[in-house]
Amino acid sequence: MSKVAIFMGSISDEDKMRPCAEVLAAHGVPFTFTVTSAHRTPERTRRLVAELEAAGCQVFICAAGMAAHLAGAVAAATIRPVIGVPITASALGGMDALLSTVQMPPGFPVATVALDAAGARNASWLALSILALSDAALAARLAADREGFVASVEKAAADLEARTAASI
Amino acid sequence: MSKVAIFMGSISDEDKMRPCAEVLAAHGVPFTFTVTSAHRTPERTRRLVAELEAAGCQVFICAAGMAAHLAGAVAAATIRPVIGVPITASALGGMDALLSTVQMPPGFPVATVALDAAGARNASWLALSILALSDAALAARLAADREGFVASVEKAAADLEARTAASI
Amino acid sequence: MSKVAIFMGSISDEDKMRPCAEVLAAHGVPFTFTVTSAHRTPERTRRLVAELEAAGCQVFICAAGMAAHLAGAVAAATIRPVIGVPITASALGGMDALLSTVQMPPGFPVATVALDAAGARNASWLALSILALSDAALAARLAADREGFVASVEKAAADLEARTAASI
Amino acid sequence: MSKVAIFMGSISDEDKMRPCAEVLAAHGVPFTFTVTSAHRTPERTRRLVAELEAAGCQVFICAAGMAAHLAGAVAAATIRPVIGVPITASALGGMDALLSTVQMPPGFPVATVALDAAGARNASWLALSILALSDAALAARLAADREGFVASVEKAAADLEARTAASI
Amino acid sequence: MSKVAIFMGSISDEDKMRPCAEVLAAHGVPFTFTVTSAHRTPERTRRLVAELEAAGCQVFICAAGMAAHLAGAVAAATIRPVIGVPITASALGGMDALLSTVQMPPGFPVATVALDAAGARNASWLALSILALSDAALAARLAADREGFVASVEKAAADLEARTAASI
Amino acid sequence: MSKVAIFMGSISDEDKMRPCAEVLAAHGVPFTFTVTSAHRTPERTRRLVAELEAAGCQVFICAAGMAAHLAGAVAAATIRPVIGVPITASALGGMDALLSTVQMPPGFPVATVALDAAGARNASWLALSILALSDAALAARLAADREGFVASVEKAAADLEARTAASI
Amino acid sequence: MSKVAIFMGSISDEDKMRPCAEVLAAHGVPFTFTVTSAHRTPERTRRLVAELEAAGCQVFICAAGMAAHLAGAVAAATIRPVIGVPITASALGGMDALLSTVQMPPGFPVATVALDAAGARNASWLALSILALSDAALAARLAADREGFVASVEKAAADLEARTAASI
Amino acid sequence: MSKVAIFMGSISDEDKMRPCAEVLAAHGVPFTFTVTSAHRTPERTRRLVAELEAAGCQVFICAAGMAAHLAGAVAAATIRPVIGVPITASALGGMDALLSTVQMPPGFPVATVALDAAGARNASWLALSILALSDAALAARLAADREGFVASVEKAAADLEARTAASI
Repeated sequence: MSKVAIFMGSISDEDKMRPCAEVLAAHGVPFTFTVTSAHRTPERTRRLVAELEAAGCQVFICAAGMAAHLAGAVAAATIRPVIGVPITASALGGMDALLSTVQMPPGFPVATVALDAAGARNASWLALSILALSDAALAARLAADREGFVASVEKAAADLEARTAASI
Repeated sequence: MSKVAIFMGSISDEDKMRPCAEVLAAHGVPFTFTVTSAHRTPERTRRLVAELEAAGCQVFICAAGMAAHLAGAVAAATIRPVIGVPITASALGGMDALLSTVQMPPGFPVATVALDAAGARNASWLALSILALSDAALAARLAADREGFVASVEKAAADLEARTAASI
Repeated sequence: MSKVAIFMGSISDEDKMRPCAEVLAAHGVPFTFTVTSAHRTPERTRRLVAELEAAGCQVFICAAGMAAHLAGAVAAATIRPVIGVPITASALGGMDALLSTVQMPPGFPVATVALDAAGARNASWLALSILALSDAALAARLAADREGFVASVEKAAADLEARTAASI
Repeated sequence: MSKVAIFMGSISDEDKMRPCAEVLAAHGVPFTFTVTSAHRTPERTRRLVAELEAAGCQVFICAAGMAAHLAGAVAAATIRPVIGVPITASALGGMDALLSTVQMPPGFPVATVALDAAGARNASWLALSILALSDAALAARLAADREGFVASVEKAAADLEARTAASI
Repeated sequence: MSKVAIFMGSISDEDKMRPCAEVLAAHGVPFTFTVTSAHRTPERTRRLVAELEAAGCQVFICAAGMAAHLAGAVAAATIRPVIGVPITASALGGMDALLSTVQMPPGFPVATVALDAAGARNASWLALSILALSDAALAARLAADREGFVASVEKAAADLEARTAASI
Repeated sequence: MSKVAIFMGSISDEDKMRPCAEVLAAHGVPFTFTVTSAHRTPERTRRLVAELEAAGCQVFICAAGMAAHLAGAVAAATIRPVIGVPITASALGGMDALLSTVQMPPGFPVATVALDAAGARNASWLALSILALSDAALAARLAADREGFVASVEKAAADLEARTAASI
Repeated sequence: MSKVAIFMGSISDEDKMRPCAEVLAAHGVPFTFTVTSAHRTPERTRRLVAELEAAGCQVFICAAGMAAHLAGAVAAATIRPVIGVPITASALGGMDALLSTVQMPPGFPVATVALDAAGARNASWLALSILALSDAALAARLAADREGFVASVEKAAADLEARTAASI
Repeated sequence: MSKVAIFMGSISDEDKMRPCAEVLAAHGVPFTFTVTSAHRTPERTRRLVAELEAAGCQVFICAAGMAAHLAGAVAAATIRPVIGVPITASALGGMDALLSTVQMPPGFPVATVALDAAGARNASWLALSILALSDAALAARLAADREGFVASVEKAAADLEARTAASI
C-alpha cells in the first residue's frame, strides 16, 4: 500500500526524479512511481489520484516542466497534501515550471520545492516530515538524519582543511 | 448558438476581459462569457467545453492569472483552437500567467496573446481571424477594420502635428 | 494548544498574513500568530519552535520578504513540516522572497506557496490538508469547502451572465 | 496548394523547426517551408504572404529568435491567423523572442506557442486544430491522436514501473 | 527640412516622448514628430521614411512599447541611423519593449537607449552627437551642455549640504 | 573630519538616502552627504574621493539608479571599501541598478546592499561594522543595537498577540 | 587615422568582438582595436578617447560584460557617439551587461546593440550608418549590402526548398 | 590567527571559492577556509563565528548557492563585516543566490559581491580593503596591485594590437 505517490508529467523527467524515489525507499516508505500527464492523460490522472487516495496514499508528489500544470491538476482532485517539483525543460531555466507550480490560487495549494534534482529530494523529505507527524519511528529516523547531515559537513570540512594545509 | 466561448478563471478578471466580449459583439459573433476555474470547478469546465463544442462553438478563449492553468485544462478537453489571455494578478507583473499559458507541451497548444486588456482584445481578433476562414463576410469586415486602423493613426498623427505646431 | 504556528519576519507583513489566521480560525484550528525574525531574533525563533513543537504544534507557517530566510531558519530547527509565504517587500515584485524561500537545499524543504495574500490563504489550506490526514472531521470539512468553491464560481457565473445579458 | 506556410527568419532555425514540418506532413497537410526575414527581406515576406494567401494558404507559422519581428510583420500583412514560434538564439534563454512575439498590440494578434522545438510542434498542432474546423476527416484524426497520447503515457508508465520493480 | 524624425507607435506614448522633441527644439534642430505604426500603418511607415530620407532627414528616432517592432521596421527601410526608445506599456516593466528593440539581427542595428522619458531624452542627445560630427557649432553647444551638467550637480550638492547642515 | 562619505548620483535619490545619513548621525559618526555623478561630474567624483580620502574618510557609500556606475567609478579611484546602494529609478524594479552595482570585475569590489531605503540603512550599518573594527566604543554600541532589535520584535509580537486575542 | 575605435573591457572578449573589426575592415574603414578598462585603467581610457578624438575618430564602440561600465565611462569623456556591446560574462545570460549599458542617465546616451557576437557585428553596422551620413561612397556600399542580404536569404530559401523536396 | 574566515555552504562550491583563498594567501593574510551550512549545521556555524571572532577574525566571507542563507545567518551572529558570494547552483543562473544574499533587512547587511569565481576573488579584495584601513603595509600593497592591473591591461592591448596588425 503506497503512502506516497510520485507522478511525473513526462518520462523524460525520470533521471531528475529518481532521487525522489530513493529518499523514500531509504526510509522504508512504500510508494508509487509513475507517469501521468495533466494534458495527455487527464482522466488517468484523476483515476490514479482517486485509486491511490482510496488505498491510503497520504501525499502526492508531482514533477513537471514548462507550463507545469500536473501538481495543480492533482490538487484539484484531492484534499490530501500535494507537493510540486518544478523541472527545467526549456531554455527559460525552470522559471516557467516554478511559477506555474507555486502561484496556485487560494484553496488549492501546491507545496512547491526547489527546481530539479534538489527539489526531487526535498519533495520526499517534505513528504516524510508530513508522514512523521503520525509515525514516531519515522520521526526518530528524521531526527537521526539531521545528525548525519552534521557529520557529513564536519567530514567535508576536515577533508578541505587537510587539503588546504597540504597545499601550503 | 455561441461561436466563441470566453472563460475567465475568476470574476475578478471581468474588467480586463470585457473588451474581449466587446470586440466579438461589435462583429456580430455570438459568444458565451462566463466564469469557470481549472481548479475550483474542473468538472464544470469540462462540461461547459463539451456542451459548447457540441453546440457548435469553434474557439475557446481562456483568461487566467497566477498559475494560469485554465487554458491548458480546456486544451486537454477539446481539439478546437484554444486562445489564452494571461492576466496580471500578482506582484510578478504577469510573468507567472504568461509562462503558465504559453509553455504548453507538444500536442496541446494554447494560442497565447498579450497580457491583460491588450491580450483580451487580441484574443477576439485572433478568434475572428479563425472564424473568417469560413465566413467571407467576416473576412471582408476584418479587411475593412484594417483600413480603420490606418485612418485612426493618420488622425492621431494630424492632431499631434497640429498640437506641436501650435506649441511653437 | 496550538496546532499551527504563524510566524512573520516583520510586523509590517501583518495585513498580508491576517487571511492566513482567518482561514485557520474559520476551521476551528488553534494557532499561534506572532512575530519573530531569522536575523533580529534568531534565538527567539529557535526557542519558539522548540516550545511550540513540545506543546504539540504540527505545522509551522513562516512569512517573510526580501532575503526571506525565516522559513529556512525554522526548517533547520524542526523536522515538522514548514510552509513558506514569500512577501513582496521591495521593488523586485517578490521574486527575491520567492527564490529565497523555495530554493532550499536537500534535507530542509520549505513548502512554498504563492506570494502575498494568496499565499497567506494557501499556507493555511496546506496546513489544513496536513492536519486532516489524522482528523477525519477536518477532512470532511475540507471536502465540503470544495463544494463551496463550486457554488461560488457558479454564482459568479450566473451574475456575470445576467449582467452581460442586461447590457445587450 | 499549401494550406499552411512555415516561415523561418533564419536558416539557422531549421533544425528546431523541422518537427513543425513533420507534424504537418504526418497529417497530410500540404505546406510551404521557407526562409524569409522581417528585416533582410521585408518585400519578399510581403510578396510571399500575398501569393500564398491568394493560393489558399489558411495559416501562417513564423519562427524567429532575438527581436523576433517576423510573426508581427506577417500579421500586419494578412488577416489570416498567424502563429509565432519564439526561438532561443541568444544568451537570454529565449525571453527576448518570446516577449517580441507575444506582446503584440490590439488588432494584430500573434498566436504564440512555446519556445523552440516544443513550440515548433505545437505551432503545427494549433494550425491543424484551425484547419480541422472545416475538415471533418482531420478532426477525426486529431481526436485519434489524443488516444495515441494516452497510449504512449500508459506505455511509458508501464515501462517505468517494470524498471522500478526490477531495481528493488 | 527635418534633420531628425521622431516616430511613436501610438499616440499614448506622447507624454513620454515630448522631452525627446524638447531637447531637439532647444538645440535648434528641425524635426518631424508624428505617429506611425509598424503593424497598423506599415505602408505609411515606409512612405514616411522614404520621404523624410529624400528630404535630408539624417536620424530616425522610434518609440514603441510591448512587442516594439517600429524601430526594427524603420531600420529595415533605411540605411540611416535608427534610434529606439523602449516604452513601458504593460505590466512587464518595459522588458518586453527593451528586448524587442535591442536584440536586432546583424545588419539592422537599432541604437537602443533607456526606457521611457530618460530614453526619450537620450535619443535626442544621441541624435545630436551624430549630427554634431558634421556641425561644429552644434558640437560646441554639446560641449557647453556638459559644463551645464557639472554646474547643475554642483548646485544640487550645495543645496543638499546647506539643507543637511540646517537640519543638524 | 568625515569618516564616511555618502554620494548620490542624483538629487532625486535624496529621500531614499536620508535614512543612510540618519543611521550614521545616530551613532555619532561624522560624514559627508553630497551629490556627484559618474557621468555628469567624473572629475568632481575623483576629486572628492581624493580629498575625502586624504582627510581620513574610511568608507565610501554610493547610491545610484538605472545604469548605476557611481560606486564602480569610486571603487576605481580608491582602495578604501566602497558600498553600493542600488536605487529603483525605472520601470525595471531596480534590477538594472542592482546588476550594474554588484557585478563588478575582479579587483574592484563594490559591497552591494539591498535596494532603496532598506539598502540605504544597511549601507550605514555595514560602514559602522567596518569602523567598529578599530573603535571599541562603536563596537559596543553595535552590540547594544542588536539587543534593541530583539526588544522591538518582542514588543511587536506582544502587541500583535494582544490585538489578535482582542479580536476573538 | 582611425575613424572608429573598438574598446574591449577585457581581452577575454576578443573572440566575440573580432566580427566587429571584420565588418569595419570589409568596408575599408580604418579603426583602432584595443583593450581598456573602466575600472582597471580609467586614465588610459580617458587618454585614449582624447587622443583618438583629436586624431579624428568619429565613433567609439565599447564592449564589456558583467557591470559593463566601459561604454558609460567613454560617453562621459566625449560628445562623439558611443556604441555599447553587452557581453555575456556571467551566469546571468548577459542581462547584467545589457542593463548596465542601456540604462544610461539623460545627457550621456550609449547606443546599445544586441548581446555578444550579433551585437559586435551590429555595432559596426551602426558605426557605418553614422559615417555614411557624410560619405556617399560608403552609403552606396551599405545600400548594396542590403541587396546582398536579400540574395543570401533567397539562396538559403532555395536550398531549403530543394532539401525539403528531396526528403519527400 | 585568522584575520578572515571563508565559509562555504557546501563542499561542492570549493572550485569556485579557491580563488578567494588564493587572493588572501597572495597577500599574506592568515585565513580559515572551511565548510559550514546555515541549515545542516546551524550550531557549528554559530560556534565557528564565535570562536573565530574571539580569536581576532575581522571579516567573514560566506559563499552559498540557491536559497543562500549562510551569509545572513553569519550576519545575525556577529557585528563584524560579512561578505556574501552568491554561487550559481541551479538552472536559475544564480539569480536565486544573488537575491537571497543581497536583499537583507535593515541592521544585518551582507556586503554582496559578484556571482561565482569573479565574486570569490572580489570577496577577498573587499576583505583586504577593510583590513588595510588599519594596516599601512597592506594598503601600500593594494595600491601597488592597482599598478599591476594597469600593466596587465597595457600588455593585453599591446598583444592584441600586434596580433591584429599581423593579421592584416
